[in-house]
Amino acid sequence: MIHNVEDARRQAKRRLPKAIYEFVAGGAEDEITLNANRTGFDRWEFRPRALIDVAVRDTSIDLFGDRITMPLLLDPTGLTRVISRAGELDVARGAGAAGTIYTLGIGASQSIEDIAAVASGPLWLQVYIWRDRELVESIVERARLAGCRALCMTIDVPVYGNRERDARNGMTIPPRINVANFWDSALRPRWLRDQLFGDHLTFKNLQGIAPGDDAVAIGTYLERELYKPSSDWRDLAWLRELWDGPLLVKGIMTADDALRAAEYGADGVVVSNHGGRQLDGLPGTIDALPEVVAAAGDRMKILMDGGVRRGTDVVKALALGATACMVGRPYLWGLAAGGAKGVEQVLDIFRQEIDRTLALLGACTVDDVDRTLIRYAGST
Amino acid sequence: MIHNVEDARRQAKRRLPKAIYEFVAGGAEDEITLNANRTGFDRWEFRPRALIDVAVRDTSIDLFGDRITMPLLLDPTGLTRVISRAGELDVARGAGAAGTIYTLGIGASQSIEDIAAVASGPLWLQVYIWRDRELVESIVERARLAGCRALCMTIDVPVYGNRERDARNGMTIPPRINVANFWDSALRPRWLRDQLFGDHLTFKNLQGIAPGDDAVAIGTYLERELYKPSSDWRDLAWLRELWDGPLLVKGIMTADDALRAAEYGADGVVVSNHGGRQLDGLPGTIDALPEVVAAAGDRMKILMDGGVRRGTDVVKALALGATACMVGRPYLWGLAAGGAKGVEQVLDIFRQEIDRTLALLGACTVDDVDRTLIRYAGST
Amino acid sequence: MIHNVEDARRQAKRRLPKAIYEFVAGGAEDEITLNANRTGFDRWEFRPRALIDVAVRDTSIDLFGDRITMPLLLDPTGLTRVISRAGELDVARGAGAAGTIYTLGIGASQSIEDIAAVASGPLWLQVYIWRDRELVESIVERARLAGCRALCMTIDVPVYGNRERDARNGMTIPPRINVANFWDSALRPRWLRDQLFGDHLTFKNLQGIAPGDDAVAIGTYLERELYKPSSDWRDLAWLRELWDGPLLVKGIMTADDALRAAEYGADGVVVSNHGGRQLDGLPGTIDALPEVVAAAGDRMKILMDGGVRRGTDVVKALALGATACMVGRPYLWGLAAGGAKGVEQVLDIFRQEIDRTLALLGACTVDDVDRTLIRYAGST
Amino acid sequence: MIHNVEDARRQAKRRLPKAIYEFVAGGAEDEITLNANRTGFDRWEFRPRALIDVAVRDTSIDLFGDRITMPLLLDPTGLTRVISRAGELDVARGAGAAGTIYTLGIGASQSIEDIAAVASGPLWLQVYIWRDRELVESIVERARLAGCRALCMTIDVPVYGNRERDARNGMTIPPRINVANFWDSALRPRWLRDQLFGDHLTFKNLQGIAPGDDAVAIGTYLERELYKPSSDWRDLAWLRELWDGPLLVKGIMTADDALRAAEYGADGVVVSNHGGRQLDGLPGTIDALPEVVAAAGDRMKILMDGGVRRGTDVVKALALGATACMVGRPYLWGLAAGGAKGVEQVLDIFRQEIDRTLALLGACTVDDVDRTLIRYAGST
Repeated sequence: MIHNVEDARRQAKRRLPKAIYEFVAGGAEDEITLNANRTGFDRWEFRPRALIDVAVRDTSIDLFGDRITMPLLLDPTGLTRVISRAGELDVARGAGAAGTIYTLGIGASQSIEDIAAVASGPLWLQVYIWRDRELVESIVERARLAGCRALCMTIDVPVYGNRERDARNGMTIPPRINVANFWDSALRPRWLRDQLFGDHLTFKNLQGIAPGDDAVAIGTYLERELYKPSSDWRDLAWLRELWDGPLLVKGIMTADDALRAAEYGADGVVVSNHGGRQLDGLPGTIDALPEVVAAAGDRMKILMDGGVRRGTDVVKALALGATACMVGRPYLWGLAAGGAKGVEQVLDIFRQEIDRTLALLGACTVDDVDRTLIRYAGST
Repeated sequence: MIHNVEDARRQAKRRLPKAIYEFVAGGAEDEITLNANRTGFDRWEFRPRALIDVAVRDTSIDLFGDRITMPLLLDPTGLTRVISRAGELDVARGAGAAGTIYTLGIGASQSIEDIAAVASGPLWLQVYIWRDRELVESIVERARLAGCRALCMTIDVPVYGNRERDARNGMTIPPRINVANFWDSALRPRWLRDQLFGDHLTFKNLQGIAPGDDAVAIGTYLERELYKPSSDWRDLAWLRELWDGPLLVKGIMTADDALRAAEYGADGVVVSNHGGRQLDGLPGTIDALPEVVAAAGDRMKILMDGGVRRGTDVVKALALGATACMVGRPYLWGLAAGGAKGVEQVLDIFRQEIDRTLALLGACTVDDVDRTLIRYAGST
Repeated sequence: MIHNVEDARRQAKRRLPKAIYEFVAGGAEDEITLNANRTGFDRWEFRPRALIDVAVRDTSIDLFGDRITMPLLLDPTGLTRVISRAGELDVARGAGAAGTIYTLGIGASQSIEDIAAVASGPLWLQVYIWRDRELVESIVERARLAGCRALCMTIDVPVYGNRERDARNGMTIPPRINVANFWDSALRPRWLRDQLFGDHLTFKNLQGIAPGDDAVAIGTYLERELYKPSSDWRDLAWLRELWDGPLLVKGIMTADDALRAAEYGADGVVVSNHGGRQLDGLPGTIDALPEVVAAAGDRMKILMDGGVRRGTDVVKALALGATACMVGRPYLWGLAAGGAKGVEQVLDIFRQEIDRTLALLGACTVDDVDRTLIRYAGST
Repeated sequence: MIHNVEDARRQAKRRLPKAIYEFVAGGAEDEITLNANRTGFDRWEFRPRALIDVAVRDTSIDLFGDRITMPLLLDPTGLTRVISRAGELDVARGAGAAGTIYTLGIGASQSIEDIAAVASGPLWLQVYIWRDRELVESIVERARLAGCRALCMTIDVPVYGNRERDARNGMTIPPRINVANFWDSALRPRWLRDQLFGDHLTFKNLQGIAPGDDAVAIGTYLERELYKPSSDWRDLAWLRELWDGPLLVKGIMTADDALRAAEYGADGVVVSNHGGRQLDGLPGTIDALPEVVAAAGDRMKILMDGGVRRGTDVVKALALGATACMVGRPYLWGLAAGGAKGVEQVLDIFRQEIDRTLALLGACTVDDVDRTLIRYAGST
């Protein structure tokens, strides 16, 4: 039984081969930042308001014109089909059923069009600025046609983070079963049956681009073929020209960069350290959020991700000024544990936890949540 | 042998089925608040006064006209009969023998009248404001007739806390023995013999109200039938009209809410986070106490509960301005370990520890305990 | 091989029955203060001075007219013969060989005269103010005749601390072998052979007073027969009249009480929490030392004990203004490990560690050690 | 496979006898400072700059006229041949291949001339001021002739640190196989084969000086024969006269001593606590660095060592004002794991990690790294 996100994680861990599980769960180098994302939340304490009528509550919010059931949406994640063959299709189904936004990744392992066809909720598109601007442009165009509502530009990957677990596990795309991981995979027949036979996990699925025939380390391929380390703010300006819908910049960790994003026309930022997968040594995102809100909260939407595992985490971020949170790993655990249903279940748990937290804080709606409801542990 | 509260807890754990033990011991979600209640005390350090004549000491206090043997009284706890068939009767006997107040819960599993009949010490009544005001009114009236001395309105349960242990353990009322917990229960023959055969644990015992015939999850039943999430300060005003004895508000965590309670006529507040069972992410109560005392300590009694396990904990709370502490789990451990005698024994341990702490601090009475006897660790 | 105090502790633990080992090693209640005594030292960091000529170093100090080999002396400890039959005699021999002061306890298990006969170094006498002033007076008189150099009045025991290990272990005086601890004792043949047959561990040895024939719990006996909880500052005044040599007050934890001691004529204080054996919840002594030094360091000697296990600990205390440190458990571990030789060995280790620490700090003598050589971790 | 320094350490631990491994890995006494060197880095958090063109990056720096591939050079380490027979020769080969400086130790176990013959990169010489100034002078002269570029005077060893692991392991020079460590050594056949037969590990190798025939404890020999505890700042002045190339002082932990070093003509300092091997209780070096930079950073080069295990550690030190870092143990692990190739591999890992960290921070060169890229955890 899945009572919380942690249950889903445990179930996913049992079902996935180690290399796949750690590809998702792991962080860069010593995982200091990965852990900081979690521990950061615990240093913020609630200050509830008693005896407020909370009989009628509403966790929904309006985000760039879409009404979603809660202040939580789905992060982009790459190569989702390593977890289950249906991959992004099931995520889109689950997100739609739960009534929130799914941010499709440019590194998705299914085509935008196929995903849009099964999605009942709003879709966003996340892009990297790749070397080949025309390729990015064509994907943005396809997203527009497919009805994507907002664009999210990820900026914290000029080079690939040092994810040592993947190197240790010999993680490649497509995943290869070899002597080292044979038994580990063989003990997960459900995953093996799902993945066997087929080329659904080549990089061809990256919206039509192909790394050749051999299995390659992910980072190696991405750095060699796609990433553009020369990317700068002019790329944001270019994207701003290209796209007249809502545009967000994901991977902001300081007030300065948030202000810069606003200058260049972004409608929002996502405070993010890429789930602790890029630069190890960054603070937890909840600790970076306050300065970003203080600097730019009045002129743009501030979202955040990183370590969000409980409804209380979401409400803490709201209290510090975030508009909404995003989650990545939690829905992947749901996907591994139960497909589209699993994704929906994890999202429903979040919604229930958010709702209960509002009630216990004396807040009826997300708008009622403000800075007075929280304090830094040990402060007065 | 029981030398301290922790010994009683260990003995209770051995005697009770896991589902029952965790129903009492557990907290909400990740139990951050549950743990904060304990660790908070350790950050306060004593500053003793040497060479004071402490030959004649007195731990007793006067609380709303009753002289009790120590600044510690018994919290209300629901469904006490899941621990032993005598339940609240034995608690009342133990509290009376130890010379302190027992706060009877509106969710008690024996009737007020039966409890009052065996109680030799003062009784208080705790109430929730349920949807059915007449029901609450009738219970308050019965409490008045039974001689209850004070009324305590709990305000931190507009909805039921997310106690995942109970969900995991399939904890219902009445407890059902099923495949999953058969062996666990069978290995506790003492508890099993005590509980077998009889309907003493249906919700009928909640002062005459009944959930129907089937075993149900506690939170589900309470939320569906009783709780009133629309409760607000007017309910306190209503209760103030109804009851002219001492009235306390339990579940206060901020200065603002303490002041509000005073405005509405409360004679005291209990700083409490419901033993970490409601909103996870609240600070430990000892950390919330100082601001409440600073704001309202001059106009009302400030009690506190949460994590109180030692006489030193009680004296630390006194030094920070509390009038007295309350304990819940400790007396339930005593009840599980030794019935009425066990309750008395746990309370006696508290009294002896308080007495010894006074002596070692250079204080003869509770009145001698003030803010100069304590400091926050690391401060000057 | 014994390379440090911790080695001696481990060896003592192997050789002593659990009840005896824990009688010495344990603290009150949850041992928060016991642990704080150790962890406190780690929060102070050295600031060395480089390139100072430290070829000629001298760890000795002058204390009330006696030159001792290092700024470390021996705390009083009661009932030392539970560890080895020679008890205090061997401690006195070891202290003398190591060239430092042994503070004989009023609760010693050998007579002052016998100890003085074998002591080659200076002796101090520690006293409690017992109910029977004449008894104390006669012991002080015997100490004077035996050549004791200073008197140390312990003030933190108006009642006996709550040492639960002793209660759990059924620790009595004399120690009794019973069903519960038979095997534990039988596995320590060295200790058993040493202790068997003889009444050397009755309370008769407390300088001639006797609790009767039966084994009793230590605290019970002391509280019933000896302790004077009505003791106050007038007792210090009385002792000041009685004794014209150096007089110290042991068990001071605040600036206020240090100043009071000075007013009443004390020549020094020992900052002490009784090794964490009395009130649990007191800060570590190294954390209490600075305020005592700031208030009274210019008018009296400030000594300290509690958790001193390394030469670096001693030097940290010196840097914070202490004149010297005292140790109790470390020499008892030496005694258990190797009799008089073991005591000497432990003290020599301290001296060597102090000497090396001075050299590495750029200090040639104890006088060179000042506040500039240390900082609180994290401060500038 | 070696993915990071920690992998190299684990491999070295498997290959080396315990006494040898701990001789390298261990610190003084309770290893508080050893650990502080590591944990200190984790309290500093990065503040990246987004969307900077980092396509062209350069990790190289100019240090006293030499261009090296990265801001990391090799610390001196004594008796390197206990790890592998080639010892310093392989280190010099590896450092040269990686393109950075190797600081040859005065306690090296191969001659300066032999090392210089195989070194393709710049060499520095580290010296202690030994009692016999002529001996030091002759070594400095040999270093000059061999082309050493800078001189580094270590000042934190007036006496030998208390490295209890070595005492426990009976670590001598040359290492002796005895009853206690026979099996431990026998299980490392690779090391045993390499070390067997030959006198390459006598102290004769210390540039021609000999302790006699017997194996002796290292500290004993050094203190008896070589160390000069009377060393003071005049020795620095003397060395300044002797050597007109760059001169650094290693072992500085305070602003005062850095300023003093500048006064006496040093061109740089190395903030160092000797890898936690001398005075236990010193802060981690990253915590001492800021005050040294603030005081003397404008007039001399500030290097640092101690706990540097990741490229992020190096970049944190740079951000706090260091010119470069030095590492000791990491290259010894590389040497144990793979000889000259292993040394090169560890250094290459550092370079790649530094390069990736620059990219992810938005910095193209070491000069782009400044104080704005870092903050102390919890500060704003």
